[in-house]
Amino acid sequence: MTAIPDVSSLTLNRLSIYLRSLRRLQEQGVLRISSKELADQFHLSPTQIRKDLAQFGEFGIRGVGYDVDHLAERLTDVLGLNTNRRIVLVGLGNLGLALAHYVGFNSGSFRVVALVDLDPKKIGQTVGGLVVRPPKDLPEIVRTTRAEIGILAVPEDVAQANYEFLADAGIRAILNFAPTRLRRRPGVRSKNVDFRINLEELGYFLKRSESS
Amino acid sequence: MTAIPDVSSLTLNRLSIYLRSLRRLQEQGVLRISSKELADQFHLSPTQIRKDLAQFGEFGIRGVGYDVDHLAERLTDVLGLNTNRRIVLVGLGNLGLALAHYVGFNSGSFRVVALVDLDPKKIGQTVGGLVVRPPKDLPEIVRTTRAEIGILAVPEDVAQANYEFLADAGIRAILNFAPTRLRRRPGVRSKNVDFRINLEELGYFLKRSESS
Repeated sequence: MTAIPDVSSLTLNRLSIYLRSLRRLQEQGVLRISSKELADQFHLSPTQIRKDLAQFGEFGIRGVGYDVDHLAERLTDVLGLNTNRRIVLVGLGNLGLALAHYVGFNSGSFRVVALVDLDPKKIGQTVGGLVVRPPKDLPEIVRTTRAEIGILAVPEDVAQANYEFLADAGIRAILNFAPTRLRRRPGVRSKNVDFRINLEELGYFLKRSESS
Repeated sequence: MTAIPDVSSLTLNRLSIYLRSLRRLQEQGVLRISSKELADQFHLSPTQIRKDLAQFGEFGIRGVGYDVDHLAERLTDVLGLNTNRRIVLVGLGNLGLALAHYVGFNSGSFRVVALVDLDPKKIGQTVGGLVVRPPKDLPEIVRTTRAEIGILAVPEDVAQANYEFLADAGIRAILNFAPTRLRRRPGVRSKNVDFRINLEELGYFLKRSESS
């Protein structure tokens, strides 16, 4: 197997965006696209596209561009999206309930396969076909479901404790929705989701439109 | 007033990340930092940092770096974070209820000031001190609260209709959590939030750790 380069979060997020753009082009029946056209259509940088894709050995042909189907397949492979990834979701407050039903977490290669909450009133209830279980069951849940990704949708004061429960149970990748920084354990990858960054982007555009 | 450059979403998101990093450095009492140190500490690219900041006239001094306080203040200004931005939140399902209480939407310059839902059972109820109102009240809500940002936390089949309600009422920036692409209106900026991109990033790291 070829070595997989260590690329930054920002690069990976751009690869995800390129792949989404390519899928739209496939829907439109587009077969080939240059980095410039791709950049123009989706408000990206052509130099950045060429640089990002070159890291994975993908080079557009001058005057011809990239083969849309091939590139989409290649990015799917690079991002590991042809492998099923099972998810255990911890925390069934409003956000957790929304995420349990979120299409992007329950389609293609991703699927929520287990739900966990500490609240005795929630344990034993069924949400989206899954029975809510207590954190102490996590080792068994991970063993039987082969879940690899944990999602934390818990209040910030219990985020670290639940991170530890997930890591102890063998989870190696954690998506944290709690607005707090986690003390990370070696070998466990975590990613904080911060909705506010999107608001800051909109704030910039409001400011820009006011000044023009 | 100086002209504000038109930069991409990806650049703006990086500026938000730099600002978060600078705030952590301020907490630690750091006064100066080079692009290299900033990059190393927060897993970013030093070249990218220099390039991004140069767009806004910020240049680190060779061997001395950037002044942390000054740069944080400058980025706050660039992102328009010293201006209050009021938010009207549409849709009070599980996700909407979570967002109504989300700290990042209710601190600093951002604040949820009005809640809207179509469901007669929800209209009139109080959530986080705000009374839920029907979509038909939007023009009056926007006029009286001076809300500038709309958040769509509605099911995908009604996302477009609610986008139109917000735009008709004078909202010029919309953050869309519904998993659907909106037909956009000229002069109305919208931004889709896609949680799945974060999962794809984790998927890459799982794949990488399996192959090593």
